Amino acid sequence: MTQKIIYSNQVDTTLMTIIGVGNYNTVIVLVDENTRRLVLPRLHCLSEAHVIEMPSGDKNKTLDTLTAVWQQLERCGATRKSLLVNLGGGVVTDLGGMAAATFKRGIDFVNVPTTLLAAVDASVGGKTGINFMGLKNEIGVFACARSVILSTCFFDTLPIVELKSGYAEMLKHGMLSNHSDFMELVESDIIPIELESMLELLHKSVKVKEEIVEQDPKEHGQRKALNFGHTVGHAFESKALADGSPVPHGYAVAWGLVVEAVLSHMLKGFPSADLYVLAGFVKSNYGAFHITCDDYDELIGLMRHDKKSRSGEVNCTLLASFGDVRVDNSIGDDDINAALDIYRDLMGI
Amino acid sequence: MTQKIIYSNQVDTTLMTIIGVGNYNTVIVLVDENTRRLVLPRLHCLSEAHVIEMPSGDKNKTLDTLTAVWQQLERCGATRKSLLVNLGGGVVTDLGGMAAATFKRGIDFVNVPTTLLAAVDASVGGKTGINFMGLKNEIGVFACARSVILSTCFFDTLPIVELKSGYAEMLKHGMLSNHSDFMELVESDIIPIELESMLELLHKSVKVKEEIVEQDPKEHGQRKALNFGHTVGHAFESKALADGSPVPHGYAVAWGLVVEAVLSHMLKGFPSADLYVLAGFVKSNYGAFHITCDDYDELIGLMRHDKKSRSGEVNCTLLASFGDVRVDNSIGDDDINAALDIYRDLMGI
Repeated sequence: MTQKIIYSNQVDTTLMTIIGVGNYNTVIVLVDENTRRLVLPRLHCLSEAHVIEMPSGDKNKTLDTLTAVWQQLERCGATRKSLLVNLGGGVVTDLGGMAAATFKRGIDFVNVPTTLLAAVDASVGGKTGINFMGLKNEIGVFACARSVILSTCFFDTLPIVELKSGYAEMLKHGMLSNHSDFMELVESDIIPIELESMLELLHKSVKVKEEIVEQDPKEHGQRKALNFGHTVGHAFESKALADGSPVPHGYAVAWGLVVEAVLSHMLKGFPSADLYVLAGFVKSNYGAFHITCDDYDELIGLMRHDKKSRSGEVNCTLLASFGDVRVDNSIGDDDINAALDIYRDLMGI
Repeated sequence: MTQKIIYSNQVDTTLMTIIGVGNYNTVIVLVDENTRRLVLPRLHCLSEAHVIEMPSGDKNKTLDTLTAVWQQLERCGATRKSLLVNLGGGVVTDLGGMAAATFKRGIDFVNVPTTLLAAVDASVGGKTGINFMGLKNEIGVFACARSVILSTCFFDTLPIVELKSGYAEMLKHGMLSNHSDFMELVESDIIPIELESMLELLHKSVKVKEEIVEQDPKEHGQRKALNFGHTVGHAFESKALADGSPVPHGYAVAWGLVVEAVLSHMLKGFPSADLYVLAGFVKSNYGAFHITCDDYDELIGLMRHDKKSRSGEVNCTLLASFGDVRVDNSIGDDDINAALDIYRDLMGI
């Protein structure tokens, strides 16, 4: 389960080489309406490719969209010797990866993530999938892209909210790595973006994920490190969605990191000084997710329903310190209530 | 890509052991209306399992059926620690394997093929899939069952046509193996079936397939040996379907074996004596697929559309002798016309 990851802002040249070496009889590119308009015209090596366009956004990461992509693969005559290039954010790379992995039992695909979040997260590790019956990534497979081209040169097409959203996952990787990686991130500016230094931060961040995934490709144990911040983050995200005011995934993760760092402090001795630095950075860049104590029960219910939970208990990954990861902690309701209280104090809400 | 294959007519005990060792939190069994009625009641270890029933037959190996199976997996609370038991013929094991391999990015599944064809063919080698846009197994993944339990004890529930259909694939394996394996098959009686000696023949036959698949799990080269008989066989099957009088897959393969053995004789020196033995056995057990020279162009067109063909040429696996396999032969129209003439002579039509 290893994918070749190429770090380069010379995407056109890199992609041209991959296409040349693979000797494909057809090249197809999957885009959404945004990447079709803003990114595709910059890639001259795809000027002759068949284009499949899917609608953007997580709400379109569905079986219907997947079916439409399969149908268009048929119509443009794709064979086992064809290449699918997924050009877009995580929705495009996840759904396109699934389409390629299942079409004729698997054709080659290359991921070219165009958002920071997809670059740092969704395009690495071989996870593909779609949402199903209201559940995120419920149907999918583990499948490796032929190559993943990571670049920062398309990030100028992104809204600031998108950039920050991806940066939250980098923050998580920094915490899973060590103190100096974390400090480098909180001392860097997200905006204005500097493409080459961002590519270096991205490289360092993805390496952290790669090392964890390599040890545990099928998510049986240590890979759960990557869930840090996500049990609580997903609960925030789901609640916001249910309340009709959705929040970006990365923002929910940033707030989730704070709550799970609090739990880490309470239960595993994570240093309070580091917790304060984290909370300060999150508050100034992401604001706060506003909750009151009346919301706690609903949030705990949502945490219990997380895909990683078993038999109805809340399961979190915690840190004893930066880089010292403890997976599979079962957390009691009292501790969650206390952690949410402290989160509100830290965020001043 | 190795699956544990267990040969046993003590299916209930074997399955109970697998379920016990796996420590699953839910066991779900996928059946069709036939195996629900005739086979499921014989397996006491599944008396408490959730039952998902799909309609039988290749025409139901569709995305709609797959979607219904996914929905029912959700409804019965399946998690990553659940087990799906696929109890049926190739349609059930192919679609159930695909459902399990994609549900939450993969849960454990066990295949218990109840037909000879599924036992000898579809349940081994990690191929799963569904038909799509009129194309067989167009959408699917390679995924390994936790175990495959091969038995003959349910074959008493099968129509004779089904048994013979599976036997044709065994005949193919015998030809890919050696002269004595082939002769043992043509000298055995298909009917009446003797369960224990059939289990031995089955074991020997599956070993042939296993060895080929192990060398080439993703079908890049040598695995094409298993396509012997199938380029022509699929063309016969498609034509029969188009003409409104479908034939069983195995019968089409049996006739395809004869035509491709003729081509092997013409182009690779396959011994004529062996060709006559094959043709005699096929004729007496399967009759003949009736064609006239007016059908040749249509058949060649169908052969060109075979999934294994590239750039519109007819591609066949051929034999220089039993066990001496030559993959990737491009066959000209004149040779196919001549081979179909000889086929008609051999079958007396």
